[in-house]
Amino acid sequence: MSASRSEACLFCRIDRDAKSVRVVFEDQLSLAFLDHRPVFPGHCLLIPKEHFETLNDLPDDLIEPFFKNVQSLAQAVESGMEAHGTFVAMNNKVSQSVPHFHVHIVPRRRKDGLRGFFWPRYPYQSDEAADLAQSAIRRALSRLSK
Amino acid sequence: MSASRSEACLFCRIDRDAKSVRVVFEDQLSLAFLDHRPVFPGHCLLIPKEHFETLNDLPDDLIEPFFKNVQSLAQAVESGMEAHGTFVAMNNKVSQSVPHFHVHIVPRRRKDGLRGFFWPRYPYQSDEAADLAQSAIRRALSRLSK
Repeated sequence: MSASRSEACLFCRIDRDAKSVRVVFEDQLSLAFLDHRPVFPGHCLLIPKEHFETLNDLPDDLIEPFFKNVQSLAQAVESGMEAHGTFVAMNNKVSQSVPHFHVHIVPRRRKDGLRGFFWPRYPYQSDEAADLAQSAIRRALSRLSK
Repeated sequence: MSASRSEACLFCRIDRDAKSVRVVFEDQLSLAFLDHRPVFPGHCLLIPKEHFETLNDLPDDLIEPFFKNVQSLAQAVESGMEAHGTFVAMNNKVSQSVPHFHVHIVPRRRKDGLRGFFWPRYPYQSDEAADLAQSAIRRALSRLSK
């Protein structure tokens, strides 16, 4: 595999010097390590070794092997940390601290203090507001699929 | 495709009566619709039509087509809602309001009021605490891969 890496990217450097992090998993394609500021102990990041900036940049042929690794790691984080479930999340661009695609895998327990889906959520103010969102996304999908 | 559905499952019923939700995307495998209590307008859920409870239950042959749809939808949500990025997340078991696998796709904007990775985060209290988490997950991975 001819991996493309960026000199300036923190996560590309981690891949070349994995001694700087606590690795929990590695294969040809990807590397997983403990986040150094976990939401809960056992919170891991899985990254592709090649430099892709966001989820959308992950090439088609890596999707299956990469997300199979996400599945395995989510099972292992849940089981190894004796948790009740997991939270698996990706920030694309906004709130993405390192611009190298990474998946957060966080062990969750019932009554762990993180409420449901954690953010304030409100119903649409009107049918028109929901119509607008629905049609904007449908138009974008149709435009992007061309 | 012989889809397996559950009579009791809210999201299996949505698939059979998609008029009850605002659909933004549908193919043979999956359905996406507006979350009725969005974090931000345009917040969508993508579900497989077959009933799988969590990410870990998604079969290997669906991973690539399903996550390609996640990519397309994330692009469309960002573009259609004129956002700066997206948040893509899965709750497995804990905080999973409907036990039918679903991916949240939320448009994000800079300074949208949702801080970084939004939860209190703390470094490990000691090297030993980090060692424990690392080795627990590595052992679980090795046990589960057998």
